[in-house]
Amino acid sequence: MKRLQNFLQQLGADEAGARMYALMERLYPICRSITGPGVRQTLDILQEFLPLQRNEVPTGTQVFDWTVPNEWTIRSAWIKDPAGACIVDFKRCNLHVVSYSTPVHGQMSLAELKKHLHSDPEHPDWIPYRTSYYQESWGFCLTHRQLLSLQEGEYEVCIDADLLPGSLSYAECVIQGNSPTEVLLFAHTCHPSLCNDNLSGVVLLASLGQYLRRCHLNWTYRLVFAPATIGSITWLSRNQEGLDRIKAGLIVSVAGDPGSITYKRSRHGSALIDRAAAHIVRQGEKPGTILPFSPWGYDERQFCSPGINLPIGRITRSPNGAYAEYHTSADNLDLVQAGHLQDSLHRIMQILHVLESDRRYQNLAPFGEPQLGRRGLYRMMGGYTNIGALQHALLWVLNYSDGLHSLLDISEMSGLDFPTLQHAAELAEKSGLLSPQPLSLEHCAIPERNLPLHQHTS
Amino acid sequence: MKRLQNFLQQLGADEAGARMYALMERLYPICRSITGPGVRQTLDILQEFLPLQRNEVPTGTQVFDWTVPNEWTIRSAWIKDPAGACIVDFKRCNLHVVSYSTPVHGQMSLAELKKHLHSDPEHPDWIPYRTSYYQESWGFCLTHRQLLSLQEGEYEVCIDADLLPGSLSYAECVIQGNSPTEVLLFAHTCHPSLCNDNLSGVVLLASLGQYLRRCHLNWTYRLVFAPATIGSITWLSRNQEGLDRIKAGLIVSVAGDPGSITYKRSRHGSALIDRAAAHIVRQGEKPGTILPFSPWGYDERQFCSPGINLPIGRITRSPNGAYAEYHTSADNLDLVQAGHLQDSLHRIMQILHVLESDRRYQNLAPFGEPQLGRRGLYRMMGGYTNIGALQHALLWVLNYSDGLHSLLDISEMSGLDFPTLQHAAELAEKSGLLSPQPLSLEHCAIPERNLPLHQHTS
Amino acid sequence: MKRLQNFLQQLGADEAGARMYALMERLYPICRSITGPGVRQTLDILQEFLPLQRNEVPTGTQVFDWTVPNEWTIRSAWIKDPAGACIVDFKRCNLHVVSYSTPVHGQMSLAELKKHLHSDPEHPDWIPYRTSYYQESWGFCLTHRQLLSLQEGEYEVCIDADLLPGSLSYAECVIQGNSPTEVLLFAHTCHPSLCNDNLSGVVLLASLGQYLRRCHLNWTYRLVFAPATIGSITWLSRNQEGLDRIKAGLIVSVAGDPGSITYKRSRHGSALIDRAAAHIVRQGEKPGTILPFSPWGYDERQFCSPGINLPIGRITRSPNGAYAEYHTSADNLDLVQAGHLQDSLHRIMQILHVLESDRRYQNLAPFGEPQLGRRGLYRMMGGYTNIGALQHALLWVLNYSDGLHSLLDISEMSGLDFPTLQHAAELAEKSGLLSPQPLSLEHCAIPERNLPLHQHTS
Repeated sequence: MKRLQNFLQQLGADEAGARMYALMERLYPICRSITGPGVRQTLDILQEFLPLQRNEVPTGTQVFDWTVPNEWTIRSAWIKDPAGACIVDFKRCNLHVVSYSTPVHGQMSLAELKKHLHSDPEHPDWIPYRTSYYQESWGFCLTHRQLLSLQEGEYEVCIDADLLPGSLSYAECVIQGNSPTEVLLFAHTCHPSLCNDNLSGVVLLASLGQYLRRCHLNWTYRLVFAPATIGSITWLSRNQEGLDRIKAGLIVSVAGDPGSITYKRSRHGSALIDRAAAHIVRQGEKPGTILPFSPWGYDERQFCSPGINLPIGRITRSPNGAYAEYHTSADNLDLVQAGHLQDSLHRIMQILHVLESDRRYQNLAPFGEPQLGRRGLYRMMGGYTNIGALQHALLWVLNYSDGLHSLLDISEMSGLDFPTLQHAAELAEKSGLLSPQPLSLEHCAIPERNLPLHQHTS
Repeated sequence: MKRLQNFLQQLGADEAGARMYALMERLYPICRSITGPGVRQTLDILQEFLPLQRNEVPTGTQVFDWTVPNEWTIRSAWIKDPAGACIVDFKRCNLHVVSYSTPVHGQMSLAELKKHLHSDPEHPDWIPYRTSYYQESWGFCLTHRQLLSLQEGEYEVCIDADLLPGSLSYAECVIQGNSPTEVLLFAHTCHPSLCNDNLSGVVLLASLGQYLRRCHLNWTYRLVFAPATIGSITWLSRNQEGLDRIKAGLIVSVAGDPGSITYKRSRHGSALIDRAAAHIVRQGEKPGTILPFSPWGYDERQFCSPGINLPIGRITRSPNGAYAEYHTSADNLDLVQAGHLQDSLHRIMQILHVLESDRRYQNLAPFGEPQLGRRGLYRMMGGYTNIGALQHALLWVLNYSDGLHSLLDISEMSGLDFPTLQHAAELAEKSGLLSPQPLSLEHCAIPERNLPLHQHTS
Repeated sequence: MKRLQNFLQQLGADEAGARMYALMERLYPICRSITGPGVRQTLDILQEFLPLQRNEVPTGTQVFDWTVPNEWTIRSAWIKDPAGACIVDFKRCNLHVVSYSTPVHGQMSLAELKKHLHSDPEHPDWIPYRTSYYQESWGFCLTHRQLLSLQEGEYEVCIDADLLPGSLSYAECVIQGNSPTEVLLFAHTCHPSLCNDNLSGVVLLASLGQYLRRCHLNWTYRLVFAPATIGSITWLSRNQEGLDRIKAGLIVSVAGDPGSITYKRSRHGSALIDRAAAHIVRQGEKPGTILPFSPWGYDERQFCSPGINLPIGRITRSPNGAYAEYHTSADNLDLVQAGHLQDSLHRIMQILHVLESDRRYQNLAPFGEPQLGRRGLYRMMGGYTNIGALQHALLWVLNYSDGLHSLLDISEMSGLDFPTLQHAAELAEKSGLLSPQPLSLEHCAIPERNLPLHQHTS
């Protein structure tokens, strides 16, 4: 079994991005919603890659303040113009029908029809994505250009769909680590043919799960594939007794567009997951963005509701709603690229690596500096201006391994990267200079914002 | 009885600014000082508008480290030049005589006279304002241009004034609210014909009092009209037993010039009054300035002395000394404008509205988000990028109504304005989702500076 | 006996800079190392200026994780080229020999010789400074230009040196103050002909000691002259029982170059020494730089190791390694100037003045402002815009002398300089308005970073 960090360098050789993209191509045509056969079909495909525990929660089940709704099955939906030509067809694009539309079949005037048509004037060539989960109605979405071109006359509309008692489907994959303490990873599965939001998150979680299953892990990882909002609420409602085990987590979504990586903090603000993710997101050639928590977005709304309040943040590239193609037919296979998916996977694995590795050490020779030279830990010729990052890292971990500061603390203080400090700590531990303290996902005694900022002088 | 917020929109229709300006025009000609008939005449006029408790504190009364001084009565004061022409006359401008000048009548050379003349070379056409409360002396103030024009020769000077045992005059208007907890509002009344400093504060407090008397109020408001320094010290000395009831307050002065609004924090720095005022002052088309506390300025020097240390801040437009006309004859009816007075009144009423309304709520459905849609609190068609400010406000108050965060906290965190959040909270309370906690003027458990900064994503 | 502040103005008249420079000229030619006769010769000269307790610690003594090494005595060292010409000679520049080189005498090819030659390609005309304290080897340093000019052939090399049991030499000068609480000042003495690093620190400490001996002092000052690293470790190891008395300190080095003053914080970060030094370094026409602690640099590495953790910061001009001439022959009598040495001395004396003088006062008339006028502490004519710095200082010390805030706190809050506030406090104490609290070097109850920032309005 390898450690997670060993896989970090081989994502490129594995063609991880291309593999995720290929899976997304398979999932893209399926019409998903918060319930129904499209979700189950999606989970069937994921099960080829990961062992999944499947769950079906019956319609009518009370989940906190909500009730699991009827299941929606859509077979076909179309509009014929006065001349009998089929001008809008669900088969061509499943965004054409408002999700959860009730069945309808009849003739109506253009004026009557227009009450059920949705378009986006700002993007006249794109079909918008609309839903009506909790109010029975029906509707079609089409490009604004097409809407404007419609002539007066009698139109025939048909939505061949069921809205009947059934169940809500979700799946989990639990990957055991040494400790029962859990890290939760969540991707929402309820969107139809929309790639970035959120097939990108689905395929990323699938790929991540495959790597995690090959790792020696300290923590237990729980991957959840469920519909947004009602899905996370259902999951939370049915797993209340196990929530105490969850000490970190990420909502993964919008992971394939060209935007830079974005981390949105948990409601805690400076839990270990927040600090680890912020640390990683700030790094690299294209540093990302760190957002504070807000109660608007994806399923962090539920995981960070005041009665739940788990230390779970959110990883995206562009935030929800912050890219033009959001919730339109332009969120397609062209928008998402394999390279972006792979970069997102790399970032998340780096974050999990910090969770797996961060710890405090105790300096066993704390009076003055220990003599590193005779232990082969320091260059023997003195007088140089620049001693190099590993030498600096050694001095930093020795000085701050006082039982209070973890490697992540020291990384933030020193500006040195986490792997270098980890390497230095392991060298010092082998030399008997450092004693490791127990691993923990709750060791953030020193809030990030109170740490002094340091720059190491070269 | 209306709530304070109901009056906020009608200040323009009420011509509140014009009314304040008209009152200022009546008060402007009166020669006030820290004692004497001018102050009493001023309070007589204010009493036409507000019921005032009048107080007279005899000369010689010990007030903390000070003693109430003799009362000063000025009848006339003039200088005649060697040709017998009256060149300086108190009747033309009461700034011409140094306040608290002792009586004098005699002839003297120009050189001798000049020891008693004060001018401002930087503003050669303005008459400066000078006082000599605690050192018996006499003097005249005149324009620097006139000073330079004086010819050699014998001058006749006359100050017909008394400096005799009497009393110091101040007045209060107490407007009862539901709670005996008090908000103190203070304007100094000791300046002669100077408009911005501080007839502006006097007329603003008078107008504010008229509105407050028509409101349903949670707190009791105490409006104090008293001379600066010795007046506030006298008031504090005579009201020590009631200081514990005062949980917020504002010194109101310099409220009519064109400068933007300025709030100076209390010595506490982040009491509720500080946070409410800073929040309001930061808003609007022309955001104002927030100053830290310093022991130099107006009567906040006394209310925030270390042994008193009340949570009382200061509202001005330009700060004291920070406008050219300060303490000169140019601080007149041209400098102050009705619109500026009205804007200041509006800001202060907004601040008091926060004091009246800020509270914590407890979310009664804290596990996941409550289903807002079936309660009519959420649009039923999903998928949109922008949900609007009220929807955001609902999510924010629900998420942070955890017993720790007040509406003002949430306003600062979310960047949403206080009235919108208040409206959202009232809607959620009506739907049974929020339970209000008791009102308090001391609920700032989370210091402002420790709140995470949030921006809501649209 | 004068107070330290009395000497601050007379450094120029004393020609303190020129005196320090003259001493440096005497010390420059001596070849020092971490042990050996050069160090003892240096201490002999310092003893002309200050009474020194001399210490010799035998080779082999265990000092924490280290062992005192053999003593190095160098007599001569040279290289002769194939033609017999002496091309490198220790007598011309003692940087030519790698410090702690083992003895050698023999003939060798250029290729063999080059394994023992060190040059700096980036500065081809300068001789680098290299050491090999803890690995037995020998070597020469020379300019890169000379290295490139060497012809093939047989070279003769000679290093006439001993590396034998002896002792490590250091010296102390303890200057008693009223309190046994100590301020430690440390300069490293182990560098050969290098002026800025660190003859500048040595001569500065010598001069400072001469002034301190003429002062009435509240604290006891301990000046330590010892080699870097092994010297401070040795000193710490032998003085463990007295470390509790040390409540502040400075490492003094690199004090004579043209760079602006730099303070590097102790590991505490906001101990009184940190706050006093940061306050002084931020001031003046040429404000300096304040660096956070890092475990790389000079002897702060030992004094701030986690098991020692003393509140000792570091004063330099350019930081170590941050000037081009660092550890080369260009760190000579041209780089360092008397004026820079004097400026550094002035800054350090200002810092020590804060340590000597900072204290809390208790306002004895805290209810409202006391009437300053009748005590002669306030101008009697009122109405002016600008009351001057001393008047402001009086108001600040009165308002914040609440038992919590020290003069340094008030200085940081008000932006007023420390001596003005100290003067105001002494005036107020004489008038019976303030009562001084006991002096302490550990009174920093309010961390610097939590103080509100204030600007006094003029």
